[in-house]
Amino acid sequence: MATEKIYNFSAGPATMPEEVIEKAKKEFFESGTSGLSIMEIGINSPECEKIVRIAEKNLRLLLKIPSNYKVLFMNGGAGSQHSAVPMNLLSEHRCADYVISGQYSKNAYIEAKKYGDIAIAASSAGAMPTFSTVPETKLSDFRPDADYVYFRMNNTVHGTKFHYIPDTGNIPLIADMSSFLLSEPFDVSKFALIFAISDGNIGPAGLTVVIMRDDIAGGARKDTPVTLNYKVALNEPSSDNLAPVWSIYLANLVFEWIIAQGGLEEMKRHNERKASHIYDYLDTQSYYTMPVDRKCRSMMNVVFVTGDDSLDKKFWKEAKKEGLINLQGHGSVGGMRASIYNTMPYEGVEKLVNFMRKFAQENPKLEQ
Amino acid sequence: MATEKIYNFSAGPATMPEEVIEKAKKEFFESGTSGLSIMEIGINSPECEKIVRIAEKNLRLLLKIPSNYKVLFMNGGAGSQHSAVPMNLLSEHRCADYVISGQYSKNAYIEAKKYGDIAIAASSAGAMPTFSTVPETKLSDFRPDADYVYFRMNNTVHGTKFHYIPDTGNIPLIADMSSFLLSEPFDVSKFALIFAISDGNIGPAGLTVVIMRDDIAGGARKDTPVTLNYKVALNEPSSDNLAPVWSIYLANLVFEWIIAQGGLEEMKRHNERKASHIYDYLDTQSYYTMPVDRKCRSMMNVVFVTGDDSLDKKFWKEAKKEGLINLQGHGSVGGMRASIYNTMPYEGVEKLVNFMRKFAQENPKLEQ
Repeated sequence: MATEKIYNFSAGPATMPEEVIEKAKKEFFESGTSGLSIMEIGINSPECEKIVRIAEKNLRLLLKIPSNYKVLFMNGGAGSQHSAVPMNLLSEHRCADYVISGQYSKNAYIEAKKYGDIAIAASSAGAMPTFSTVPETKLSDFRPDADYVYFRMNNTVHGTKFHYIPDTGNIPLIADMSSFLLSEPFDVSKFALIFAISDGNIGPAGLTVVIMRDDIAGGARKDTPVTLNYKVALNEPSSDNLAPVWSIYLANLVFEWIIAQGGLEEMKRHNERKASHIYDYLDTQSYYTMPVDRKCRSMMNVVFVTGDDSLDKKFWKEAKKEGLINLQGHGSVGGMRASIYNTMPYEGVEKLVNFMRKFAQENPKLEQ
Repeated sequence: MATEKIYNFSAGPATMPEEVIEKAKKEFFESGTSGLSIMEIGINSPECEKIVRIAEKNLRLLLKIPSNYKVLFMNGGAGSQHSAVPMNLLSEHRCADYVISGQYSKNAYIEAKKYGDIAIAASSAGAMPTFSTVPETKLSDFRPDADYVYFRMNNTVHGTKFHYIPDTGNIPLIADMSSFLLSEPFDVSKFALIFAISDGNIGPAGLTVVIMRDDIAGGARKDTPVTLNYKVALNEPSSDNLAPVWSIYLANLVFEWIIAQGGLEEMKRHNERKASHIYDYLDTQSYYTMPVDRKCRSMMNVVFVTGDDSLDKKFWKEAKKEGLINLQGHGSVGGMRASIYNTMPYEGVEKLVNFMRKFAQENPKLEQ
């Protein structure tokens, strides 16, 4: 199998485009006699500032980020943002509403409760199976005096995606866009703050993109750790809050790759084509079950089960032999999950569906 | 100059050993048709666990870490630890003593004050120039009921190093060992908790090593962000608190490189030899001034000045032309700083001293 192409369906870190790998290879380890490696660039150096500036410029171009929004490349993962959001954005009044659509928004809610009066405005935890859909929300679900409303756009674990943007009226809307950002265009101006960890569509782990309206930072609690303070991160970028230079450098290579592919419109077309290929197959057979509500199917993470744990395990194992790796579902859910981020080629999805078809034929279920 | 070897005297990130660069080059970008890149390894995968396990084993070997100490490879920089230490280690009583010997211990003190009754037990801020020595401390300087005593071993900005380990009796001693760890052997058991960011002797930015006695974690404040909670990091390593896999992988290559060189005894010999070469020259001339107290000279960061800002600038510029780069002192101090971490070869220091000699001859001061 060593000569066959491997397709990595991991939920994160995702596959890197080969063009990016090739480009990075040249500069990343440039060292020794000829110069410095990206790894050796100091955080306050002009080289670092240049990398950050270019990465921001390309991200702004891709997402059409309005000029009254700031961009941060922060270190730490989603967990850091789970704390940073309430610590920075709760007013003296300390009241915010959360929409719970999966494990990560639930974690964000649990974290936020440390810092204020946090309500669950809506939840799909009660769905069968749990979180197999996203909650429908309306403006009246939110407390008019909430400091913000929080939700997660794409649920990596459960394979769902919000098919709408919650209407929160004048209440600032905060979105965790991890595993969604850069997969399709959307209107940044509908949000007060967006964050996304890097290991879906952006690049390898180590980076969190934060995009915030310029009026939103500045009211942090006095006991906010300096590394989680948005205003400090905006005004004094340092190794305490800025992502490692190498990760910003790699993220920018991915931004440039997306631009070269045709931008987010093209990513959307490409991603819809891939997702449709799997969902279309799933919809026309009965061997695999897809527990997700049809109207909020994720375009990035496709989950399905055989309904038999031992068959699921066999599926992972045999798929791996065919070069289709990391198809295990999240530990809390089981079954299969195919994460098909921007960098997954259509051929990977074709190969997966062919394998699914073959596996179903070769492994009849006893009760069928 | 492109063909000449470049020596990077940056305070961080430091130069990577060429052997490490070569080894990493092979595996880091292994991707595409042949397998996964280190960057693509998932945080909960067996591959990741293996990398962490091996890195920990090698670090334990190098530092002779006692078995009742835990090792964490956390993400974030020193700033995160400045918050994590008080948030985790202050008891209900909330009282700790800080020894201030430079900018970073001062930052740690300012951060800790958010969370309790923090006293300055000793400080060398009043030295002339400020922080040009480290404070002498005795047991009676510390409040017997302090939850811990905090200090920083090596002061990267000011070029000083503690020439002794403060005697704190039964009070847990916490040390920031950034830019010191792995430069020489020391007795881990004298400390309750040690941390060090990676960009001195460990590897590129993105990783903080935390070594803690196993009785020390567990009493975190209720509002401690989940990513800064040591107990969570110990029991539930996740992308929220674990450093990116690639950085742990690279750190381990450096650990293996140090072991191959002969371990910390050999690093000490090598580092003393390099530091002596510069200090010996500085002690026998009068062109450059070395503002640091002789008894606490840093073995890692050597600071000196010409006494004339325009000559200092000329020094940086001409040194750079000779392939001796990043010799500017920290912005708050000015002058020159040569950071000579483990990976700086003796030849780099020889070349620096030769350049210093030549520069002094070619640029006589007006008043001399």
